Amino acid sequence: MLFSEIAKYLNSELVGDDLEIDSMNELELASSSQLTFAVHKKYASQLSYSKSKAFLIVESLIESLPQHTSYIVCDDVSLSMAYATKLFAPKLIEPQLQSAVIGKDSYVDDMAKVENGAVIGSNVTILAGAYIGTKAVVKDNTIIYPNVTIYRDCIIGSGCIIHSGTVIGADGFGFSHTKEGVHVKIYQTGNTIIEDDVEIGANCAIDRAVFNSTVVRKGTKLDNFIHIAHNCDIGEHCIFVAQTGVGGSTKLGRNCVVSGQSAFTDHLDIAPFSTFTARSGVTKSIKESGGVYSGYPLMEHREWRRLQTKIANLNK
Amino acid sequence: MLFSEIAKYLNSELVGDDLEIDSMNELELASSSQLTFAVHKKYASQLSYSKSKAFLIVESLIESLPQHTSYIVCDDVSLSMAYATKLFAPKLIEPQLQSAVIGKDSYVDDMAKVENGAVIGSNVTILAGAYIGTKAVVKDNTIIYPNVTIYRDCIIGSGCIIHSGTVIGADGFGFSHTKEGVHVKIYQTGNTIIEDDVEIGANCAIDRAVFNSTVVRKGTKLDNFIHIAHNCDIGEHCIFVAQTGVGGSTKLGRNCVVSGQSAFTDHLDIAPFSTFTARSGVTKSIKESGGVYSGYPLMEHREWRRLQTKIANLNK
Amino acid sequence: MLFSEIAKYLNSELVGDDLEIDSMNELELASSSQLTFAVHKKYASQLSYSKSKAFLIVESLIESLPQHTSYIVCDDVSLSMAYATKLFAPKLIEPQLQSAVIGKDSYVDDMAKVENGAVIGSNVTILAGAYIGTKAVVKDNTIIYPNVTIYRDCIIGSGCIIHSGTVIGADGFGFSHTKEGVHVKIYQTGNTIIEDDVEIGANCAIDRAVFNSTVVRKGTKLDNFIHIAHNCDIGEHCIFVAQTGVGGSTKLGRNCVVSGQSAFTDHLDIAPFSTFTARSGVTKSIKESGGVYSGYPLMEHREWRRLQTKIANLNK
Repeated sequence: MLFSEIAKYLNSELVGDDLEIDSMNELELASSSQLTFAVHKKYASQLSYSKSKAFLIVESLIESLPQHTSYIVCDDVSLSMAYATKLFAPKLIEPQLQSAVIGKDSYVDDMAKVENGAVIGSNVTILAGAYIGTKAVVKDNTIIYPNVTIYRDCIIGSGCIIHSGTVIGADGFGFSHTKEGVHVKIYQTGNTIIEDDVEIGANCAIDRAVFNSTVVRKGTKLDNFIHIAHNCDIGEHCIFVAQTGVGGSTKLGRNCVVSGQSAFTDHLDIAPFSTFTARSGVTKSIKESGGVYSGYPLMEHREWRRLQTKIANLNK
Repeated sequence: MLFSEIAKYLNSELVGDDLEIDSMNELELASSSQLTFAVHKKYASQLSYSKSKAFLIVESLIESLPQHTSYIVCDDVSLSMAYATKLFAPKLIEPQLQSAVIGKDSYVDDMAKVENGAVIGSNVTILAGAYIGTKAVVKDNTIIYPNVTIYRDCIIGSGCIIHSGTVIGADGFGFSHTKEGVHVKIYQTGNTIIEDDVEIGANCAIDRAVFNSTVVRKGTKLDNFIHIAHNCDIGEHCIFVAQTGVGGSTKLGRNCVVSGQSAFTDHLDIAPFSTFTARSGVTKSIKESGGVYSGYPLMEHREWRRLQTKIANLNK
Repeated sequence: MLFSEIAKYLNSELVGDDLEIDSMNELELASSSQLTFAVHKKYASQLSYSKSKAFLIVESLIESLPQHTSYIVCDDVSLSMAYATKLFAPKLIEPQLQSAVIGKDSYVDDMAKVENGAVIGSNVTILAGAYIGTKAVVKDNTIIYPNVTIYRDCIIGSGCIIHSGTVIGADGFGFSHTKEGVHVKIYQTGNTIIEDDVEIGANCAIDRAVFNSTVVRKGTKLDNFIHIAHNCDIGEHCIFVAQTGVGGSTKLGRNCVVSGQSAFTDHLDIAPFSTFTARSGVTKSIKESGGVYSGYPLMEHREWRRLQTKIANLNK
């Protein structure tokens, strides 16, 4: 799509050369064919490093743009960005694609739906009521239980087990907001990648990324009712006990153990081998690996135990 | 159904004229053709204002009944009411109704089920594994992702997006209890109404009302795993982050923001523009709009922050 | 399967006579044809009472074994046990079994899947998108709403109502762990039994047992989003409000009331008629029946209320 078409859709003026744009991405990751955006003056220095040639920016950033770039000045970049994502939203289905490729010795129940353009490996089992979206990939030896939903473009590794009711790749929860308090959808144009040997319990939801990928890495095991928001990166061999949630873009290192009903806010970076006892509420990044934490606000587990004793003493 | 038939079903005696009854409702809202009930003497004054002509009541309320009404005196009104709801429970399916009406340019996957009597607007997409119940309505431009379930009689507005695994209109959680500790189902004869431009994440559940409607108003956005109980009324343009729950009959004003893992008990009335930080536990109504709250028990966010500092100091 | 074959699969040496093994079970419950295991010296006394003739044990337990038994000595019994369970994992489907038996006056939607070997009682309703696994049983008068999944071998009683999105009998969350931090699946070879007159809300998950059965007893009612882990035993006429979770092997007595967002850790034994207010976190067994509890750490409700007052006073 031409940048000029995007400008027209946004009722805005394109400054600079017209360009062919194939998708959108955040400032740090955008390639030369991707549209990006900078909502605030504080991104000035990042702007200069961006590989992108096409920007939605606030007026105060014009001078910080690299040379030979094109841009649209927006009153509310966040809002314009949200509107623009709609232009890059993948279609719900693409019937014109060729039928799904099903590998050797795989079983796909007649009552499962595999959309055109999907690729199923060998020795895969897909039971009734499961849904495999357009261009999704399910690799060898994986088991998809009944009524699992895998949205388009998502990738499921080999040797995975996905239990019923789980939803992989639904839209991340992202909106920009008008002054009148209306929430404008940021279309989620990325996907979800589940690496090899991951087991996911019943009724989990692992959202697709706004751009790029939400990732659950090799060997991680999720219990039931786990919520993984868009753009998370869950390390290898983690354990998530039931009813836990992870906010957007949060990254966990390998072999973290997260006990039941715990939660993480967004944009955290959690060191590997961290352990969180039940109902931990994690709101800050953790740099040292191997710690054990509890509580909300979070603290070291030992400290939390001591504190619980002190609190109980208040009643004496 | 005749009131005398209901009396017979309850093994009770009808006092007064026989009447044609078309449904049940609570005291305040019952019309002249609806059966209603008063479980306790404290409802005496409300009785006198009721438009209903047919009552299940405790003996002590006989004198408070308006003239020209009919009634059944019950030992346990709550229990009799529960039994009576069964008589008005809608059928699971009605195959004799005509096939669903599907609007122009709508796509309904061959592997989606649309029950007879449903009405689908134009430019709607309903993907494989979705279920649209008897007499349910899905309005224009709405997207129903795979394995969504919409129970009978529910109404989904236009421009909505409902993600996979979400269940709209399952029975609210309502029971009366015998002295022996057995729970008797109160059949949930109402429905759920989702207004226009609502987006609902994966694996949510928005129960149908016991009588009347559970409502999610225009422009509200729900993340994954949101529980909305029967008879809630969620205002316009609210935001619910993942794993939150709202108890029965609770009402939120417009533009409330509810962060992750928060919960509301039942029968609350929450002022518009209220914000609740993560894991808030709300047990009282809020009258002033625009506040920010935290904690369980709930308090103002500033107060909660101060309190957390004080609590942390206990450990020093 | 012969014990010698299991030994070969584990690359281990069988000591004693070869035996025909039909399944696995824990030490206390194993029959003479079941393979069992003892991971630690502390199980020495239990070993002597076991009816099993076939053991995976640590070396230090050899002398404690009853006479005329066969065994494999394992470096890591827990790990060998996990590997062995794979040999007894039931097949995902068994197409060679005869078609499901459907009782009189039952309705099974054309778009529901009932696997071969299942048995459906009379006057059962199974709506579109529901899945009934191999050899599963659904008894008389039960209603299975759309997109419910019932895994193989599970048993649903009569007069039950199972709402959409609920998953009965998915694998319990059980793994052994290598020294390298890799999680090895313990195949869940048991089932889930739902007794008569149980109602289960939308999007619940009640896992199958590792061995034997997870049980939800007669008349219990579950709201939405309830997580019941493997090998739980939930007593008769309990009430679970939304978003609660119960850890593995925890047992609740009859008529317990569990309010919203509460949770139980694993291996607890909870007395009948216990009540837990919202967001209780239960980590210890309860012996006296009839108590009311709150908080995390859990305490008596009255005590918790007093404590909340004391905590609030810290801010004064």
